[in-house]
Order: sequence, then C-alpha cells, then structure tokens
Amino acid sequence: MIIIGEKINSTRKMVREAIAKKDTSFLQKLAVDQARAGADYLDVNTGAFHEQEAELMKWLVQVVQEVVEVPLSLDSANPAALEAGLKVHSNGSPIINSITAEEAKFKKVVPLILQYQAPVLALSMDDSGITKSVEERFMVAKKLIEALCAEGIAQGQIYLDPLIQPISVQNDFGLIAIEVIRRVKQEFPKVNTTCGLSNISFGLPQRAKLNRCFLTMAMVAGLDSAILDPLDQEMMDAIRASEALLGKDHFCKNYIKAFRESKLK
Amino acid sequence: MIIIGEKINSTRKMVREAIAKKDTSFLQKLAVDQARAGADYLDVNTGAFHEQEAELMKWLVQVVQEVVEVPLSLDSANPAALEAGLKVHSNGSPIINSITAEEAKFKKVVPLILQYQAPVLALSMDDSGITKSVEERFMVAKKLIEALCAEGIAQGQIYLDPLIQPISVQNDFGLIAIEVIRRVKQEFPKVNTTCGLSNISFGLPQRAKLNRCFLTMAMVAGLDSAILDPLDQEMMDAIRASEALLGKDHFCKNYIKAFRESKLK
Repeated sequence: MIIIGEKINSTRKMVREAIAKKDTSFLQKLAVDQARAGADYLDVNTGAFHEQEAELMKWLVQVVQEVVEVPLSLDSANPAALEAGLKVHSNGSPIINSITAEEAKFKKVVPLILQYQAPVLALSMDDSGITKSVEERFMVAKKLIEALCAEGIAQGQIYLDPLIQPISVQNDFGLIAIEVIRRVKQEFPKVNTTCGLSNISFGLPQRAKLNRCFLTMAMVAGLDSAILDPLDQEMMDAIRASEALLGKDHFCKNYIKAFRESKLK
Repeated sequence: MIIIGEKINSTRKMVREAIAKKDTSFLQKLAVDQARAGADYLDVNTGAFHEQEAELMKWLVQVVQEVVEVPLSLDSANPAALEAGLKVHSNGSPIINSITAEEAKFKKVVPLILQYQAPVLALSMDDSGITKSVEERFMVAKKLIEALCAEGIAQGQIYLDPLIQPISVQNDFGLIAIEVIRRVKQEFPKVNTTCGLSNISFGLPQRAKLNRCFLTMAMVAGLDSAILDPLDQEMMDAIRASEALLGKDHFCKNYIKAFRESKLK
C-alpha cells in the first residue's frame, strides 16, 4: 500500500492559518510526523490561497523538503501551481496531483508530466463533471488512461482515482467507487489505483471508523494507494492487517513485526 | 448481517469448566450479554465432553433458553447431540450447525433438517477433507447445496460456510475463503453465507484486529452472517460501518442511531 499523507492541505483551517503566518515549525512537524508514521508521499496543497497559490506552493514544497526525505504529492487544480512546485521539488519524483479528462486541463498538465517524468494522479472526471454510474465512471477512467498512454505516459506512472463521494449523500457511492477500482484493475492491471479516502465519510459521525472500513473494502477490490491520515494509528493497523489478510505480507512478517515493535494500537 | 454469538463453546476453557461444574449463572450471563450486544443467534457447543455431549447439549440449551429469547445455533459434529438439542429447543427455529458433504454425516443430518424445518449451516467439505483451491472448494459447496436442495431443503434455509483457515498457515487462505463466498453468492444468490470468523487469525497476535478487517472484506464479497464475538464492540462498529458503506443502511440511519445512543466505541 502506497500511503500519501493528507494533512498538509490548506482546506484544513489550522494548516491554512499556518501557511498564512508562514509558521514553518507547525508545517514541518506535520511533515515529520507523517513521514515517521509511514507515509510514502506527503500531499501539499495551497489551493485555499487562490491568487497566491503558485507562489505559496513553491514556498511550501521547500519548507517541507527541509525536514523529510519522502517525495511530495503536489496537489492543485491549477497547472501553474503544479509547475511552481515541480520546479523546486528535489526529494525524488513527486506525484502530480492531479489531471482530469477535462480538455483544457488535460492539455496543460500533460506537458508537465512529460517534462518531469513524474507519476500523475488522474481523476475520473471530464467536462461533463462526475458521472453517476459504475459504467460511466469507468468509461471516463478508461478514456483518461488511454489518452495519457497515447501521450507516451506509462500505465505504471498513472494513479487512477475513481473519485470517492460521500455515502451520506447517496448510499451506493461507496459501492460505485469500489466497482470502478475493480474494473480499472481488471482492464489495466499496471495502472495504480488511489483515492482521497476521507471523502467517503463526509457528513457522518466517527468518520475515522468509516474511513478505515472503506479502505479495507477498497483494498479487496485492488486499491494500491490512498491519500489518508497516517497519524491515525488504527488506520495504519487496518492497512497492515488487510495486507496480511490479502496474502500480500509473506508469512505475515510485517504484521508480526509491527506487533513486536508495539506499533499496533 | 446475521450475527451468531460464538462465546458459549466448550472448546473455550472457561466455558468447558462452567459446563462441567453446571455453573448456570456464568453461562447465562454469557448468553444475556451476547443477546444484548445484538446477537441474532447464540451458538452452543458441548463437543469437548465426547460421550456426554448429547446429554449436556440438552442441558445447555435449556439453561440458555431460560434467560434469552433469541434462537440458538446447535453446534456439533455429532448428529445425536444435534437431535438432543433440537428436541428441547423452543426459542423459534434454531440453526443446525452443521452438515457437510461427508456421506455418512449427510445421511444422518438431513432427516433432522426436514423434521425440524430448521436452517442448516453447511460446511464446504466432503470425505476427501478440506480442499485447497477456490475452484475445488466451490465445487464441494455447489455439490452440498444441490444435494440439500434435492432433499427438498430451500436455498434460503442454507448457511454455506466456505471454511476459514488461518492465514498464519498459508498466506492465501483468506483470499480463498473470500472468493468462495463471492462464487456462492453469484451462483446461488438465495443461499446465505456464513463463517467461523476467528479461525482466520489463529496463531497471530492481536487477533480481534484481523478478525474485524476480514469480516469487512468478506462482507464486500457477500457474507450474510458470521459466528463471532458480539461483545467485541469494535467488531460490532465495523459491521455497522460496513453495512453503511455497502449501501445496506438506508440514509446511514442505523450507523447514526448507534452513534447517538453512544453505542459506537
């Protein structure tokens, strides 16, 4: 499981304030804590700052890189902010988060992927928005994967996100995402799947409980990666347990090791 | 999810001692606690007592029925013990636990199912033992379901158990069970699926953590029921969360209700 730490995101009030105040120690602690907890990538987002987004992305990438060695997931709907982050990123290869099948965005982000040879997080949506059925959502995913491959981008460079919507809005939104993941892994086994996990529980109480359960479910369907809170130790336990249960942890070694090192909550 | 409380089982040392001492208050407390926690059935097993199994089954069924209204799951490999329990069972319709495709056992248990018109837990094994591959295990399940139906037993009366073996013994034992559940639900949608959940984690630390995760995984594949510990509140939370995530809890009402009543841990 490839874990993308979700916490350094300007849609979160405390992070937004820390960025506004240039409180590097707050932000760097969030980075160090997530990397120590096992994050493979750290998501960084300055989208709440609109006009200043690109400039702050550049600053934030540098601040985070000072204290961790893991690569970042440069999270922006704005290609200029993605580029600003890419220019200063030096911790290996960052994830470009994200591209969609929306025509204008696709055209602007593809050159960045090619120039920086970076993996890319691809959201299953196009100019018609987020489709409702499994079949429609999968067709958008397929179109996007094929379009990226046609540009010379390898399947293994793609992290396909089926787009998770809250079950509080529509009861089958979880099932739809799970089925899209299953279809993508069936038809494009080399493409990685990922998701913004916590969307599933929006509007409900005890969200972490739902998030953990949904992660386990999506792992059965073939989820390879997720943007999540690595500081939720029970979440990390659920990942270790799920990997063992799915036969992905030889002799359950990692699970037993985590227990011996008292890492299991 | 149909929950069969696992705790009144003579393979557990404290229960064995309580049965040996005829400690009704200990056993009745286990029964009341499990029913209050939400068990739909209570499993009762006196198998550790060999020669006295049938006689003690009769006694145990009566002891448990004095204090709860839920029906029991009469758990024995010995048809005489099943019959002894059936004769005195009066809390609605008990589950006969279990039948297999082993020829001698099949012949002895079928008349009990027909006479008492009770649901039956059917283990996917035959005279050759427990098969290894998904395909073989499914074929045994199919043979058993079809043989039961040929005797006039309805599909909906059957609780098919794929047989869960420990992932500590072979890494893909969890995956095999999940795939058998999926196949059974695909080909026999009216047949209920169930399992003895805790077998999955035998030999590993922090078993409850693995059991909960595996339950969630099996629910995605179509698990309808499980023999489990209803006193594990996090397990019950995982069931509520999974039902909401699978679109089986309209408007997430049960999940929200459990939260409001402070039932979520």
